[in-house]
Amino acid sequence: MQSITTYKMPSINQIKIINSLATKKHRNKHNLYVAEGEKLVRELLLYKSSNPLWIFCTKDFLLNEFNREILSKVEIVTYDELKKISFVQTPNKVVGIFYQTENNLSIDNLKNELSLCLDTVQDPGNMGTIIRIADWFGIKNIICSKETADIYNPKVVQATMGAITRVNVFYTDLLDFIPNYLESTNNPVYGTFLDGENIYTKKLLNRGLIIMGNEGNGISTEIEKLVSDKLLIPSFSTNQEKSESLNVGIATGIICSEFKKNSSF
Amino acid sequence: MQSITTYKMPSINQIKIINSLATKKHRNKHNLYVAEGEKLVRELLLYKSSNPLWIFCTKDFLLNEFNREILSKVEIVTYDELKKISFVQTPNKVVGIFYQTENNLSIDNLKNELSLCLDTVQDPGNMGTIIRIADWFGIKNIICSKETADIYNPKVVQATMGAITRVNVFYTDLLDFIPNYLESTNNPVYGTFLDGENIYTKKLLNRGLIIMGNEGNGISTEIEKLVSDKLLIPSFSTNQEKSESLNVGIATGIICSEFKKNSSF
Repeated sequence: MQSITTYKMPSINQIKIINSLATKKHRNKHNLYVAEGEKLVRELLLYKSSNPLWIFCTKDFLLNEFNREILSKVEIVTYDELKKISFVQTPNKVVGIFYQTENNLSIDNLKNELSLCLDTVQDPGNMGTIIRIADWFGIKNIICSKETADIYNPKVVQATMGAITRVNVFYTDLLDFIPNYLESTNNPVYGTFLDGENIYTKKLLNRGLIIMGNEGNGISTEIEKLVSDKLLIPSFSTNQEKSESLNVGIATGIICSEFKKNSSF
Repeated sequence: MQSITTYKMPSINQIKIINSLATKKHRNKHNLYVAEGEKLVRELLLYKSSNPLWIFCTKDFLLNEFNREILSKVEIVTYDELKKISFVQTPNKVVGIFYQTENNLSIDNLKNELSLCLDTVQDPGNMGTIIRIADWFGIKNIICSKETADIYNPKVVQATMGAITRVNVFYTDLLDFIPNYLESTNNPVYGTFLDGENIYTKKLLNRGLIIMGNEGNGISTEIEKLVSDKLLIPSFSTNQEKSESLNVGIATGIICSEFKKNSSF
């Protein structure tokens, strides 16, 4: 039953806060992030652990499925009002403001797991896609260099398609973290390189760290020294001139697929 | 040796033509497309079969490697002039205008090949990434529905990272093409569906058509009827709530990897 029918306007103060969430500095100051669009916001709202502060939606955003607590945070606005707070050109029914969740990185929790490690993946679309891949392949933790795209960047949130609530993402100094990880777990640290072993024939474990590198520069020289197992996705092109590399999101998808597939037999 | 040192300005007529190439209609009318940025344009220029009409670059775009014929098409411009013809906010040294290449679709050429078939992939980034994946995995032909993103859209060109010259992309009515293909080749027509067979255990041939569907709607109902072998990339998530699907580019990467890998042993 659609119970809310009176229109409200976001207050000047609300608009000011929401607009400020474009920058990481203000997202962290307010401990908030923005998620937009019917499908994504619906998925976040139905997910137990997500915590909305405000939901602004047009009246065609169906509210039937939500409980009283969520409905208390909903304000129905006109499309013009929605545009004022949206980060996209043509907003789709709803803009949600959610609290960030804090995760504490514990190497003990990573010991029997396969985890991803991002060495400065910078494109928000790639970052979001990688979080979605992790969710699909049951990878619970992603450890990122501090220069990696911020998980709460609106474009990252969008590209995760809801997976943002199901994968833990940590930001840390990888040059500290990886040596500690190696010492505490004795797990392999994988990375892809042009001189790596063929991923299709190498034995892959269902625990360890898979490092994915920056879009332009790959894995940095300092991090490369910490890699124990170098991998390669071989090209099947017979052209003399061929692509130098795969997009980092695509490479992550193929690598996660190979690791998980092998562990399932 | 950097031989060109006098600045020229793109003519008003050139600027007009280049700006018009934002739309498919004008790209097809002029039989031209735009490629930008040092890495991409350099790769295209060094590729034998690419055919430039004009190259506008700032003087820091190194021209040493190019032959006389290409150099005759180069004009050195100021950064401000480059901005006038660029499709991006911060142009990177060079904007190239290239002739489109025409490919004729022949089912005979597809008979012993694995080919991709796109049922209305609409996002230019996904389209470009899929072309790059095809190049990597030695897939020479992509057959697209007429509603699929245009290969010569500047964003598609950009996302191919140069693979655009090495993969043949055709646009046709898939409801005509697929039945003809099935009749002439007897090859399988693969597609991914929620009720498909596990891609990791199914025997995959190194010939046939792999259909990838639209970002929101997947493979359309009419095309689904023409699929002979339904596939599924299984999720390994143990969460009750999990991602419904993978991004179409990621799914294409994983599927091509599985097909080619199996054919290589």
